[in-house]
Amino acid sequence: MKDLIGNLAEELTRLPGIGRKTAQRLAYFILAMPEEEARSIARAIVDVKEKARFCPVCFNVTGEELCSICNDGAREQERLCVVEEPSNIAVIERTGLYRGRYHVLLGSLSPMDGVTPERLKLRELKERVENSAVKEVIVATNPNTRGEMTARYIKEMLAPYRVKVTRIAYGLPMGGDIEYADEVTLGKALEGRRELS
Amino acid sequence: MKDLIGNLAEELTRLPGIGRKTAQRLAYFILAMPEEEARSIARAIVDVKEKARFCPVCFNVTGEELCSICNDGAREQERLCVVEEPSNIAVIERTGLYRGRYHVLLGSLSPMDGVTPERLKLRELKERVENSAVKEVIVATNPNTRGEMTARYIKEMLAPYRVKVTRIAYGLPMGGDIEYADEVTLGKALEGRRELS
Repeated sequence: MKDLIGNLAEELTRLPGIGRKTAQRLAYFILAMPEEEARSIARAIVDVKEKARFCPVCFNVTGEELCSICNDGAREQERLCVVEEPSNIAVIERTGLYRGRYHVLLGSLSPMDGVTPERLKLRELKERVENSAVKEVIVATNPNTRGEMTARYIKEMLAPYRVKVTRIAYGLPMGGDIEYADEVTLGKALEGRRELS
Repeated sequence: MKDLIGNLAEELTRLPGIGRKTAQRLAYFILAMPEEEARSIARAIVDVKEKARFCPVCFNVTGEELCSICNDGAREQERLCVVEEPSNIAVIERTGLYRGRYHVLLGSLSPMDGVTPERLKLRELKERVENSAVKEVIVATNPNTRGEMTARYIKEMLAPYRVKVTRIAYGLPMGGDIEYADEVTLGKALEGRRELS
């Protein structure tokens, strides 16, 4: 441990998007931080590794028995939003537009890579639909080949049940420019056009 | 500690340049990291806070009695590079062009803010010049009002000694474009012109 700052900087470069210069800058910033704040960051890192587990209902990450969303009685029981990863939940939550619950698949189908339906939390999704008041399953898997395949699989898997299966819309990103849109997205945006009201 | 990931993300936003989204992304990355690596980051943070101190010779940050540069017998004794902050040392070291030693002032003069010469490591600089084989003091304080004032102060302070006091050059940043240079920098670049050889 000859060079504390150099060591911390090197550790920080393990993180994505943090290069050598940024790491160095962060290391000096941490050096100058109140000790309690620095310890608090370190503790949060260790806590995540020590206490994180999957919510047994929706497979979100949590430090409790149930995740905070499953535990929240105010969330709608009728809607289930299916996502690939726990991190996707935060993105959807930030829209502030969704008040239902979630189901995390922990991946997306890719038979060529050995990710078959049994490897994902698909059986658990079916069981939730069977045993609950869910009326709509919103499939929010990624808009790519794997996410699409997974969405179609879910659609078929849930066909026997009285549940609406919807897919989040494709289209142009807000603030974007048609000039720079790729043709596939633009085609999807055309297909998905809605009447102005 | 309801939401481990949310808590870690919030802790990480204390760091400069890390917004909410980046923090969330980092938190999930840490969650997926090998436990030993995550612990290693946490440990490096705590180590910096617990063990960091100033090198009693040059005021660089170190975890040892002397900093690694002062401890390195291969570094030139004749040249001393004066910088404002310990973090500046890493920047100069990265050039690979300097083999001398350093002296960190731990700030720059700003009498209006109460940063008078006694608040900086200026007396210690004078003592090093008095009591060592230093032949050149390279002043690498920032190219701004405070750094300039500090440079001039050092020049006067060391006038009685047989030591050359130099200032790092001003000029156009490499890879830049004259078109976008501000006139002060461009003026300095003109002033500092050198004969092509």
